[in-house]
Amino acid sequence: MLTFKQYLDKVNAAIGNIHYPQEPQRLYQPIAYTMALGGKRLRPVLTLMACEAMGGQLEAAMDAALAIEMFHNFTLLHDDVMDRADVRRGRPTVHRRWNDNVAILSGDAMLTMASSLAAKTGNAAVLELFNRTAMEIYEGQQWDMDFETRDDVTVNEYMNMIWLKTSVLLGCACKVGAIVAGAREVDAANLYTMGANMGIAFQLQDDRLDVWGDEKTFGKEIGGDITQNKKTFLLISALNNARGTQAEELRHWLSVGADRRAEKVAAVTAIYEQLGLDKEVERMIAYYSGKAIDALDRVCVSMPLEACDAFSTLIHSLTNRDR
Amino acid sequence: MLTFKQYLDKVNAAIGNIHYPQEPQRLYQPIAYTMALGGKRLRPVLTLMACEAMGGQLEAAMDAALAIEMFHNFTLLHDDVMDRADVRRGRPTVHRRWNDNVAILSGDAMLTMASSLAAKTGNAAVLELFNRTAMEIYEGQQWDMDFETRDDVTVNEYMNMIWLKTSVLLGCACKVGAIVAGAREVDAANLYTMGANMGIAFQLQDDRLDVWGDEKTFGKEIGGDITQNKKTFLLISALNNARGTQAEELRHWLSVGADRRAEKVAAVTAIYEQLGLDKEVERMIAYYSGKAIDALDRVCVSMPLEACDAFSTLIHSLTNRDR
Repeated sequence: MLTFKQYLDKVNAAIGNIHYPQEPQRLYQPIAYTMALGGKRLRPVLTLMACEAMGGQLEAAMDAALAIEMFHNFTLLHDDVMDRADVRRGRPTVHRRWNDNVAILSGDAMLTMASSLAAKTGNAAVLELFNRTAMEIYEGQQWDMDFETRDDVTVNEYMNMIWLKTSVLLGCACKVGAIVAGAREVDAANLYTMGANMGIAFQLQDDRLDVWGDEKTFGKEIGGDITQNKKTFLLISALNNARGTQAEELRHWLSVGADRRAEKVAAVTAIYEQLGLDKEVERMIAYYSGKAIDALDRVCVSMPLEACDAFSTLIHSLTNRDR
Repeated sequence: MLTFKQYLDKVNAAIGNIHYPQEPQRLYQPIAYTMALGGKRLRPVLTLMACEAMGGQLEAAMDAALAIEMFHNFTLLHDDVMDRADVRRGRPTVHRRWNDNVAILSGDAMLTMASSLAAKTGNAAVLELFNRTAMEIYEGQQWDMDFETRDDVTVNEYMNMIWLKTSVLLGCACKVGAIVAGAREVDAANLYTMGANMGIAFQLQDDRLDVWGDEKTFGKEIGGDITQNKKTFLLISALNNARGTQAEELRHWLSVGADRRAEKVAAVTAIYEQLGLDKEVERMIAYYSGKAIDALDRVCVSMPLEACDAFSTLIHSLTNRDR
């Protein structure tokens, strides 16, 4: 096993080696631009780790790892168009730097490139899981958009949405690595469960840090989700649990614009704390991290001890991170 | 061999049998809506015909045929967003009936469904051709958009663009049918050449009918391309060939809006005729139909006579059609 940083370097080297045709420039430059933006590269690293943990060669899983990273970046590109986001990883989004049409079409091309990479594995099970996961992610994105215009979203509906939108791709990333390595179905399934639950915990940690994170270590301004009325676990729980004047107060702050940002963030945070959501989200993160660890424990018998330790360390670092 | 109508019925029955999940509604309804709009279904019929002509079972090619039709409809859906088109086959386009985000996301889902169908063939060569063709089509669409803002597009550049945007998918439709049937590489390649050249002739015939078609049989108003300054073979040839006052006159009419539609259509048509483009486009259609027939002749030795006749009849009907 390598360290996370060493896997990351391998992934970044492989991404750097992807060949894009010169022309048409406005089709391929946005793809190269998007893939060079970086990011945690968590998904492809999970694929390589899972493959090695299950006794496979790292190189055998690289196409699958790149397929998943390319797919992930395609979803970010199209999501940014749909959400009218201006900035991604500190750089202008593709639809802002070029335009919507360029973003739509280069995203389509990234999806096909991702499918080609998945097909290059020559493994029907990889391809099937990849395509099924993609459909689940579109469903998650559609639910997310549907929820924006609804004020009666339940916590269960929200959890189902982030399961589809976020978790399944981390589960898929782990499982395809295992499939490529020729792992037993039960081991591959446990790695999927581990990755998917890690994904839920990771997403909830994101929601938590946006409210209670330390601005210096978090790296971005606190309260962005509150300012935008973003339907996070916290807001949805608050909408479901607040009663009487507290509920009225919450509705009031939701109608307040970004011009009173500091006030709004402080007030909504206070309501979250009155409702005990700071503790509740920590409890939820611990619950899903625990499920990830349980799944890991079940598959650890089939992998070297150092691989088991590496996954365990990763789960803890992702779900206890402060940035 | 069946008749075109019989193949079409089989394709439509299979499209009618595609299962879409109930929810999320705004993801799947637009897909079902798009697939039900109809159209010629030329591509999937070509796949079934090519498969049977090469000795395969029609059913064996159905997934590949549906993959190509689903992909084609996905490109129309996203192109309509990019072109801001309001109507497709007499019905509101998806982004008009729902909205842009729904159109982007349901299009993405159609692309993944198309890939899944192609993967279901279990044939790596089918999948590889499918993915390569998809990339070529995106390139064609990007060139098409690039050309809109350029006034120095050459006829060669235009022909290359429509080759990518239109022809390769007809070539692909024929070739995947042949691959599924287990045809020899040379026969599959000839069917590709036949389909692709048929596609060029078909596209040029579209451009021709928009100017010199009979409104009653063509089924839509004549002169739509001229009114919109659409960069067709005719306009690009005219821009490249007009000299002196004729060139000035053409530029003048390009600056005239749709409020003087009838006048503009008559004037630009007159310029096309002065330049002999009515004859030139007919010559080009005959040239590419001839190339399609030549390719067919080379593969006819490997298929039953009735299959050869069926393709020959189809090429003639598509490139001599008046609607």
